[in-house]
Amino acid sequence: MQGYLTLLTDLYQLTMMNGYLKNGKEKDIAVFDLFFRRNNIITYSVAAGLEQAVDYILNLRFTEEDIAYLRSLDLFDDAFLRYLADFRFTGDVYAVPEGTVVFPEEPIVTVRAPLCEAQLLETALLNIVNHQTLIATKSAKVAYAAKGDTVMEFGLRRAQGPDAGVYGARASVIGGCRSTSNVLAGKMFDIPVAGTHAHSWVMNFATEYEAFSAYAELFPDACLLLVDTYDTLKSGVPNAIRVFDELRAKGHEPKGIRLDSGDLAYLSKRARKMLDDAGYPDAIICASGDLDEYLITSLKNQGAKIDLWGVGTKLITSADMPALGGVYKLSALYPASGGEIPKIKLSDNSDKITNPAFKDVYRIYDKNTGKAEADLIVVRGEKIDESKPLTVFHPREVWKKTTFTDYTVRPLTYKVMEHGRLVRPLPALREITEYAEREKETFWDEYKRLDNPHVYKVDLSEKLYNIKNALISEIRGENG
Amino acid sequence: MQGYLTLLTDLYQLTMMNGYLKNGKEKDIAVFDLFFRRNNIITYSVAAGLEQAVDYILNLRFTEEDIAYLRSLDLFDDAFLRYLADFRFTGDVYAVPEGTVVFPEEPIVTVRAPLCEAQLLETALLNIVNHQTLIATKSAKVAYAAKGDTVMEFGLRRAQGPDAGVYGARASVIGGCRSTSNVLAGKMFDIPVAGTHAHSWVMNFATEYEAFSAYAELFPDACLLLVDTYDTLKSGVPNAIRVFDELRAKGHEPKGIRLDSGDLAYLSKRARKMLDDAGYPDAIICASGDLDEYLITSLKNQGAKIDLWGVGTKLITSADMPALGGVYKLSALYPASGGEIPKIKLSDNSDKITNPAFKDVYRIYDKNTGKAEADLIVVRGEKIDESKPLTVFHPREVWKKTTFTDYTVRPLTYKVMEHGRLVRPLPALREITEYAEREKETFWDEYKRLDNPHVYKVDLSEKLYNIKNALISEIRGENG
Repeated sequence: MQGYLTLLTDLYQLTMMNGYLKNGKEKDIAVFDLFFRRNNIITYSVAAGLEQAVDYILNLRFTEEDIAYLRSLDLFDDAFLRYLADFRFTGDVYAVPEGTVVFPEEPIVTVRAPLCEAQLLETALLNIVNHQTLIATKSAKVAYAAKGDTVMEFGLRRAQGPDAGVYGARASVIGGCRSTSNVLAGKMFDIPVAGTHAHSWVMNFATEYEAFSAYAELFPDACLLLVDTYDTLKSGVPNAIRVFDELRAKGHEPKGIRLDSGDLAYLSKRARKMLDDAGYPDAIICASGDLDEYLITSLKNQGAKIDLWGVGTKLITSADMPALGGVYKLSALYPASGGEIPKIKLSDNSDKITNPAFKDVYRIYDKNTGKAEADLIVVRGEKIDESKPLTVFHPREVWKKTTFTDYTVRPLTYKVMEHGRLVRPLPALREITEYAEREKETFWDEYKRLDNPHVYKVDLSEKLYNIKNALISEIRGENG
Repeated sequence: MQGYLTLLTDLYQLTMMNGYLKNGKEKDIAVFDLFFRRNNIITYSVAAGLEQAVDYILNLRFTEEDIAYLRSLDLFDDAFLRYLADFRFTGDVYAVPEGTVVFPEEPIVTVRAPLCEAQLLETALLNIVNHQTLIATKSAKVAYAAKGDTVMEFGLRRAQGPDAGVYGARASVIGGCRSTSNVLAGKMFDIPVAGTHAHSWVMNFATEYEAFSAYAELFPDACLLLVDTYDTLKSGVPNAIRVFDELRAKGHEPKGIRLDSGDLAYLSKRARKMLDDAGYPDAIICASGDLDEYLITSLKNQGAKIDLWGVGTKLITSADMPALGGVYKLSALYPASGGEIPKIKLSDNSDKITNPAFKDVYRIYDKNTGKAEADLIVVRGEKIDESKPLTVFHPREVWKKTTFTDYTVRPLTYKVMEHGRLVRPLPALREITEYAEREKETFWDEYKRLDNPHVYKVDLSEKLYNIKNALISEIRGENG
């Protein structure tokens, strides 16, 4: 598991740090924003991974062994290696709480620290926050498709390594799953663990009936039987019912059955009828096997009789989009000599032009419905007077304006670390999941639907917009 | 990083183990095969992850804390929890060496162990081997597309968590990458590390020229400049050439430039001409930015002037197929009471029917070309007499037969662990990558090409085929 991550970085962070030190820039204060770029598949995200990101920052130390390794690369000067021996993170970190619904271009983590320190954090912060936010977001979509049914995370065996399984399970729960098959994640984060038996259990007994019978004896009050090892309708369900009858005769009620292959719509309807006819209307039907939000939606549209969903591979890898385009970009510099310089990265692609300055994000809510209406990225320190109408405009298509009158606002980010120390304890996973559920509730379904979701407005304040345009003109003039 | 993984398992492995113990089956010897199912994207794979899988097995121990946690779940009986306290893996493991080219349905790891022990291994083995084999395979495709150019692995920031970055870098090198940006992976596995500077370096100086100049002073003999921060052709390349001239005046030769955005075909050709005209025909052009095997092929077809490739997100996540369909299936049982029972899992989908019995795999080579011709899955112990013609047939379409005459064979797997101990030390990464290069050379390009690759033959021996069919008939008769 996570453990010691100081060297979990791209080599160029270290070569640049050496250069900043050599050029006397190590004490310049830099502001970097971590945010996601726009894409066609993920229109909203559920932020996750802050706890592990903070843990990484708090434990940054270069060991003697690390320094010996870096020296062996023959790239770094002695002054820099000495600097690393005493390296600690001494800066400030701002972030949205885990579980917050966020949108492209919004800073979800902002680091304000001496340049070398802020630079070093880039790779690991992106790795951790990209991953968990990706999986929390996928999980939110799966949970949305399940329309209130319980979803279990079942993907460990197909996750991209142990961490992807463990932190993916954590992120899945933030997004909306209610349990995991992953025992280590269950222990580490106090997540309910779930699971029954595999095909191999059935194959290890002389007959399917014997296997079911032995399982029922083992867990008489949690008897959920996997019925598709040989033939679901001709063998699996009839054997399950026979064992359920025996269980009931001993005073226990069965839990239900699990389908893991075949046509889940057809099989679930036929199995439901067989269970009902046999006197088990309360026995649940659990389904698993290459499920995702689209297949769950399709099964629901077909009237499949499924009560409980086990979602694995496609959730734990976010199969249709296995990486978030998270980036970490310099947005302001406060040289040791004084002053403040907002920074911008230009590109021919206007989506890749960054927002300069030390910023914050406000979310605007309709006072009557309590629903989120738009987000506004501002220069940090800008205040919004809720008693006055608020006009916001699109960051690129500036003729698109909206004015809010009956609204409230709240800042999305808070100061997580100050001078290298945690400002207050981070919430437990249970609190995060409760917050995430409330967060999702503040958005209209139109933003959350799977097909052609409405695009949520993320606008810039006039002050920020003006800084940005001035910078673009200035640089285009200088370098053009 | 990997570390302590004993609880990295699905809950149902533990509930089944409890059941096997209660039913007196814990000493039955089971054989499980780990293999990949057929799919449309990955026609061959490069096996990877065995070292970490073995490390996991050798370190399996339930701590008191683990057992206390499991007791708190109120699912397990005391006898089972006592059994876990003394749990060690005591079985045998067979596997193909890392770097071996493998195909669907072939056992790449086989575990032969007391049932409870073999069952516990399923989830973590799949997690580790699925992940690394996936990334090694993707890397092999990327390296194939680069046609001998050096490929660097640059994906850490977009990997699915720390382990995915570190073990993904390792697997990338097994597949064909020659270096990584990931410093921790470099240190852990002695992989060459690579990287220069980011856009933020340029933005932290007053002008691009100053930034380049400072970088050249820092690394005069390894000066590779990122030229797309403001405007590649109008600003980046001219500033790079100015700095290269100054470097040369001081007796150093520049290394080259890196392009990270824009139209790489166009920009590389224009930049190449500018560098050549300025007297730098040996300065290389490195490209990065959302590359994969298809984009590299397209750039090469367009005559892009790129010498060095940095491949990130799409490699480290295997973006077009982020999970291998690896499974771990019971294939034979040797009850403590004696005898051998081959085991099969049936399915309506014939691709999901497993191959029974304790097996091995032979690879058949053409004696004249040394190229691989087909693989043959056999019952372990079956010998092939190379002096006689060898007829193999398709496992499902049995009218498809091929007879080999001038051939040699070699077994693909070897015994890695015996009675819970490593039989001999595992090879270092350097040996694995050399072996993997030789392995890929034994396959005709027709099997490796990206579009419509020829399907490699993986057949069953007659003995295995007969066992399989007899089992299918028997079970269909019993349960049908």
